[in-house]
Amino acid sequence: MPTSPFAPLNPRERILMGPGPSTVPARILRAMSAPTLGHLDPQFIEYMDETCQLIREVYQTKNLLSFPVSGTGMAGMEAIATNLIEPGDEVIVCINGVFGGRMKDNMERCGATVHTIEVPWGATFDKEAIAEAVQKYPKAKLVGIVHAETSTGAHQDLSGLAEIVHDAKMLLVVDAVTSLGGHELKVDEWGIDAIYSGTQKCLSCPPGLSPVSFSDRAIARIDARKTKVQSWYFDVSMLKNYYTGDGGRAYHHTAPINMIYALRESLAIVVEEGLQNRITRHREMHLLLREGLEALGFCYIPQHSLHTLNCVALPEGIDDAAIRSRLLNEFDIEIGGGLGIFAGKAWRIGLMGHSATKRNVRTLLAALGECI
Amino acid sequence: MPTSPFAPLNPRERILMGPGPSTVPARILRAMSAPTLGHLDPQFIEYMDETCQLIREVYQTKNLLSFPVSGTGMAGMEAIATNLIEPGDEVIVCINGVFGGRMKDNMERCGATVHTIEVPWGATFDKEAIAEAVQKYPKAKLVGIVHAETSTGAHQDLSGLAEIVHDAKMLLVVDAVTSLGGHELKVDEWGIDAIYSGTQKCLSCPPGLSPVSFSDRAIARIDARKTKVQSWYFDVSMLKNYYTGDGGRAYHHTAPINMIYALRESLAIVVEEGLQNRITRHREMHLLLREGLEALGFCYIPQHSLHTLNCVALPEGIDDAAIRSRLLNEFDIEIGGGLGIFAGKAWRIGLMGHSATKRNVRTLLAALGECI
Repeated sequence: MPTSPFAPLNPRERILMGPGPSTVPARILRAMSAPTLGHLDPQFIEYMDETCQLIREVYQTKNLLSFPVSGTGMAGMEAIATNLIEPGDEVIVCINGVFGGRMKDNMERCGATVHTIEVPWGATFDKEAIAEAVQKYPKAKLVGIVHAETSTGAHQDLSGLAEIVHDAKMLLVVDAVTSLGGHELKVDEWGIDAIYSGTQKCLSCPPGLSPVSFSDRAIARIDARKTKVQSWYFDVSMLKNYYTGDGGRAYHHTAPINMIYALRESLAIVVEEGLQNRITRHREMHLLLREGLEALGFCYIPQHSLHTLNCVALPEGIDDAAIRSRLLNEFDIEIGGGLGIFAGKAWRIGLMGHSATKRNVRTLLAALGECI
Repeated sequence: MPTSPFAPLNPRERILMGPGPSTVPARILRAMSAPTLGHLDPQFIEYMDETCQLIREVYQTKNLLSFPVSGTGMAGMEAIATNLIEPGDEVIVCINGVFGGRMKDNMERCGATVHTIEVPWGATFDKEAIAEAVQKYPKAKLVGIVHAETSTGAHQDLSGLAEIVHDAKMLLVVDAVTSLGGHELKVDEWGIDAIYSGTQKCLSCPPGLSPVSFSDRAIARIDARKTKVQSWYFDVSMLKNYYTGDGGRAYHHTAPINMIYALRESLAIVVEEGLQNRITRHREMHLLLREGLEALGFCYIPQHSLHTLNCVALPEGIDDAAIRSRLLNEFDIEIGGGLGIFAGKAWRIGLMGHSATKRNVRTLLAALGECI
């Protein structure tokens, strides 16, 4: 028998309650391990079409151009930035944490002049601030904003923003990495023009794909480009042939077949549970956890907290790394440390998708009670 | 019981003998469906380190910066192009099929002035042609060439090219999507500076990752950049912290955990079989298939054929689409049609990784014999 230089794969069965990935249900892992088809196989094209249809349902949109970008959540961000921005464009980005800052960085790399508006980490933007920015930078082509700031746990209200942004002939671009499938997110009703998310958060699918959606307004902007998209891999003008059937399913790149299986299964689970039921479950689990955390002396950092991610300040005397290690090693529970300026000062506790259960909330609170 | 709007996932068990993906062994599918860990979990970091070490082994390189890009094969191409090229750079690209042309397109999008040298589809480049190009375009920063042209089945000899390229102070960039794990490929001995491949070809892992490797010479070029890499997602200066441990495993993006499990398993299988044994197996299966195809009246298009991909001209009177459909529907065998100028004129029959077996060769020949 040949011997392998490496031990057999045997990952521990963690309860994943960090900022993502969340725990993946066995049903999704099983779907992912179904036999691999070719990316042009008619049967696979059917699965892909169903997956795109499910993405539309969960985003609550009719946008034809809704598909999974072949990369993790940040690939979705880049796909949107590279397609919507041409060198020299002005854009507005709202920053209240790491991911707004990342959007700025990404858009600058696309050649944009980025005007930022900022509020303190943990805070969110009101409509007036957006209206003011839009007036101050009238040449901007788009406004980028984060729905669910994974670094601070802040929940941005998006309703009513599109009117302001569209009146100024700009596009509304949204980061929904930590909200899709866990929070109310109405792409059509809220007038969102381009949105990206990740599979490994509230969909409880392994990381590896980024569901995106583009409105007709966004597509018109892309169609009117004077320059080639600077990324070949993310060029929507080519990708749409494959994902929407427009142009005859032309081969662009080899789609990540088994990841698509997993995403399709995870989205079907969302539809089976019912999107509204799922959103309610996330809210209820958040309230249950919040009550327990506050009883233990933790304070929530954001004024408007996400249900899917609970960002709390570390009380005096708590040893960040030591306790997170104990949770991981003694209880097989992962929670997240602070990110950016919150490193060492906050914890981020995810309640996403399959991880958002009463059993997990009670287990975590019990484990924390023992550790602190 | 909740009902799902979609039928349960039930992909057919195809024999994948197209230009990729190849058939994925059950062992790899099983590994992929192991419990998902967090991307910063110490146990996952260990699996990632092992995966990078296995990538080095299979590429026959000591390059520290060897890792799986979080996207399919073309993401690896883009990761290399965006990191090595600055706007205004001149480069040389060798084109003898679709994938050389794609490299040109990609590098132009990075702002490069691309000088091309071309030979007819199916032909390969001799050293003299490279030496001439290097002399003609002395300002070029790199030479890009395809080791295994998936569109034509041509096998490019790479030995001896590095001396020419390095003497001219250029970097040697190689597309090895269809050769890694199936053909001899000596990154260090052949002086390759940057190379990319895909998981779904001769490694028989599902599509979704692109193993890449950068030489010290390439890293020095990246370190000397005057401009930011235009892609945030593919920026090696940030990615290397996570993949090599340099800078303390800083979080960049969420790695596709379960795909890494699958890649680690597929590379372990290569090492268990023995790289040389595996290369020999691919050669033997190619010869067996070739004999059978020629007996059926097919002619190979390339002068130097890959073992991993057999590109044959369609004889007069053969109905391309109808026969490929019969193979798929009656025999569950996938082979590939022609790509680019070969569409409708050629077939591409893959013998990659787990698909390269005597059983598959005999089955395909028998099925073909019945269909034509």
